Amino acid sequence: MLKQAITKIKNWFPAPKVSAHCDGPCGVYDPAAARITAEAVVSMTKKIMALEAPNPSDKAANIAYQNTLSRYIAIKEEQAQKTKDDLLILWTDYFKPVHLEKYPDLHDTFWKAAKLCSACKVEVSEEHANELMDAVQKIHQMFWATKDKDVTFYKAS
Amino acid sequence: MLKQAITKIKNWFPAPKVSAHCDGPCGVYDPAAARITAEAVVSMTKKIMALEAPNPSDKAANIAYQNTLSRYIAIKEEQAQKTKDDLLILWTDYFKPVHLEKYPDLHDTFWKAAKLCSACKVEVSEEHANELMDAVQKIHQMFWATKDKDVTFYKAS
Amino acid sequence: MLKQAITKIKNWFPAPKVSAHCDGPCGVYDPAAARITAEAVVSMTKKIMALEAPNPSDKAANIAYQNTLSRYIAIKEEQAQKTKDDLLILWTDYFKPVHLEKYPDLHDTFWKAAKLCSACKVEVSEEHANELMDAVQKIHQMFWATKDKDVTFYKAS
Amino acid sequence: MLKQAITKIKNWFPAPKVSAHCDGPCGVYDPAAARITAEAVVSMTKKIMALEAPNPSDKAANIAYQNTLSRYIAIKEEQAQKTKDDLLILWTDYFKPVHLEKYPDLHDTFWKAAKLCSACKVEVSEEHANELMDAVQKIHQMFWATKDKDVTFYKAS
Amino acid sequence: MLKQAITKIKNWFPAPKVSAHCDGPCGVYDPAAARITAEAVVSMTKKIMALEAPNPSDKAANIAYQNTLSRYIAIKEEQAQKTKDDLLILWTDYFKPVHLEKYPDLHDTFWKAAKLCSACKVEVSEEHANELMDAVQKIHQMFWATKDKDVTFYKAS
Amino acid sequence: MLKQAITKIKNWFPAPKVSAHCDGPCGVYDPAAARITAEAVVSMTKKIMALEAPNPSDKAANIAYQNTLSRYIAIKEEQAQKTKDDLLILWTDYFKPVHLEKYPDLHDTFWKAAKLCSACKVEVSEEHANELMDAVQKIHQMFWATKDKDVTFYKAS
Repeated sequence: MLKQAITKIKNWFPAPKVSAHCDGPCGVYDPAAARITAEAVVSMTKKIMALEAPNPSDKAANIAYQNTLSRYIAIKEEQAQKTKDDLLILWTDYFKPVHLEKYPDLHDTFWKAAKLCSACKVEVSEEHANELMDAVQKIHQMFWATKDKDVTFYKAS
Repeated sequence: MLKQAITKIKNWFPAPKVSAHCDGPCGVYDPAAARITAEAVVSMTKKIMALEAPNPSDKAANIAYQNTLSRYIAIKEEQAQKTKDDLLILWTDYFKPVHLEKYPDLHDTFWKAAKLCSACKVEVSEEHANELMDAVQKIHQMFWATKDKDVTFYKAS
Repeated sequence: MLKQAITKIKNWFPAPKVSAHCDGPCGVYDPAAARITAEAVVSMTKKIMALEAPNPSDKAANIAYQNTLSRYIAIKEEQAQKTKDDLLILWTDYFKPVHLEKYPDLHDTFWKAAKLCSACKVEVSEEHANELMDAVQKIHQMFWATKDKDVTFYKAS
Repeated sequence: MLKQAITKIKNWFPAPKVSAHCDGPCGVYDPAAARITAEAVVSMTKKIMALEAPNPSDKAANIAYQNTLSRYIAIKEEQAQKTKDDLLILWTDYFKPVHLEKYPDLHDTFWKAAKLCSACKVEVSEEHANELMDAVQKIHQMFWATKDKDVTFYKAS
Repeated sequence: MLKQAITKIKNWFPAPKVSAHCDGPCGVYDPAAARITAEAVVSMTKKIMALEAPNPSDKAANIAYQNTLSRYIAIKEEQAQKTKDDLLILWTDYFKPVHLEKYPDLHDTFWKAAKLCSACKVEVSEEHANELMDAVQKIHQMFWATKDKDVTFYKAS
Repeated sequence: MLKQAITKIKNWFPAPKVSAHCDGPCGVYDPAAARITAEAVVSMTKKIMALEAPNPSDKAANIAYQNTLSRYIAIKEEQAQKTKDDLLILWTDYFKPVHLEKYPDLHDTFWKAAKLCSACKVEVSEEHANELMDAVQKIHQMFWATKDKDVTFYKAS
């Protein structure tokens, strides 16, 4: 059935177009963009977990705490969304039917990774944040393998 | 293989979460958002095709023509992107492994629809714009079927 | 006085232009966009009211609670803003002096609806959220009446 | 009829809230924001009119011309939209029923100004751009009059 | 060394281009945009400090408090970011090597002002918010001095 | 004078805060984000130069050409802006007075790089696009040197 689906999509796109991260055929794709924002998700999740609520009677400390906590949650949200956006650009624009033949779990890999981005918003979960990082690394490997290029996966943090 | 993939993802998400079009669990999903913007893509594509370039010697008419053409292209781009975004929210957040069992072509349907959004940006193609409209209608049917709700598909234009 | 105003504006726009939700003349207007986001405002307002603060001593539960509450408030804000934007596009771009003659309370209807969007941000008020929903439904009726088209008002949630 | 409408809205908002340009009660409203962007609309409109198409055989000059023209049109679009957004924030959030009593043409003033913003996008019209500038100046006067503050209207360009 | 740097940059930009707040050569720059948003930062900071946490047992009051506090923090964030963006546009696009000769502390003035914008996000500090306001006023003076134009600095709030 | 400026800023920020690419203290900075978008600027610039205008009498070809050219210019604009944003985040948030002592040309490096981003929008210049790429590479070296980390500079395209 998967093979049929590939054939159907292949026929539908007789001449695959080269487009890119920017919705144009600039040809510049790099999972590093998703890696940077996924790192931020991991970092913010850890920092939220590490925050200590101050004594309720210390008004200034409580305001500072609320300001920090609110911002961390908002940044986690924003960075998880950017990760999702960047991953889906790879899935919808870079990967072609020919890649699906080579990686039959292509769709599931991206579905799972996208759902992990959402999970990292809904929860404050170090486990899911780390799984997202792993998913990004897996996609990094798949991506560069399709280009026969060896690019080291590193973390900025 | 597909069944294995479903089982794997099901295990990975033991308790599917209810989230929504707004990245929150508001429970409000409606393919009508994607339908409205897809209609705009069709409309702008037709209007671009229908534009007549003025006589090169009529400066004012040429400026007006360029202004109109530039805007139509930019609006087509923006509306195709919004269609893509709204469809992918359905795919990543609304549809769950249980739906994949019922609709084994779920991934291909969305992959194709997303690629059609990109094609409608890259080209000025009435054929692809209409195919996008059909893809949105197909997703409308799938979506409301999962909710056992009968919602008529209509066009605003 | 209202009649004078209409005449003045009519003269000012001798040949009303057909534009649309997308700032282009795509002709695609549909209050369904505002209805979807207004539903999200109602939904988030209810979910915020239903949240129960955990025991202050349970750190993990408190972090999860803060994450959820912060997100719900941010989503309510965003969806109320989108509702406002979509309603104002109808008011400024779709409705023309000829409609003002037929609906003398056109301006007040939209002013009130826009102010309700702001009220739904400033407060967590189920009453105002429901009033916003009613305002959107009223605008839905007015809108489709001007097109002599019968479109059923439904809710996705 | 206008009076009835005012009474109705007044009852609906028994205690008008003080909100602001930022969707929060910061109390900071200033039509100068709309004035700056309206000036940009006037400026871009003039510059588009002043552009001279190069000889069709000079490829480099034509590319530079297209790049400049495209950007000017896009900037005009963006600045007209910002002007519209900023004016509508004044209308929906700053102005209250009490102001409507004092300025019965409040709604029409803003409707006309918003429609002028759209006209400045759709056309390359120095006349409409100048009318938009006048509308912004009129709103500047109305606004500061409600605050009994004398603020000189100036242009940055 | 500063002089060398100026010469180097001057050579690099043989014919300085006139661009503007809108990334186009509209010629419309006005520090008033940054002043309006900086005023909002000051206002929101004060309002956050003035909020009183309600009795923990009053659920409705606590929800209203959290809604207000969350929004104030988000608005402070947004307005500080806009201030930063608007200031940096002046620094990168308006100010030219010739101005650096006249104002050798040009870079430090903007660096400090930009860092103050970030500080106003990270903290709830009336002191830093006021320093940001002062920095904006200093830039207002520098800016209008380069244009030999006398524009009064005023506050909308 | 530079030393004085450093001392002044150092005193002003007695305890430099660690913030990040996301306006939060996630600690994740990576010039790779600016490198990816700068590559897109280079790529789009080359592709614009390589486009051949079709025969004026071939309407369909001309529409396709205008669609492609418009999109390339818009993408170049967007990617140059993102490059500018990402570079300025490094300058305003990552780099601290202590780095200015080590790199006295820090301000000039970023000013020049930011002005190059603007130049790449205003023009279709392969020379300036390549200079932007060089500027990004220089900043990559400076950045990783401050972290005593050896990260290879590569291009995705």
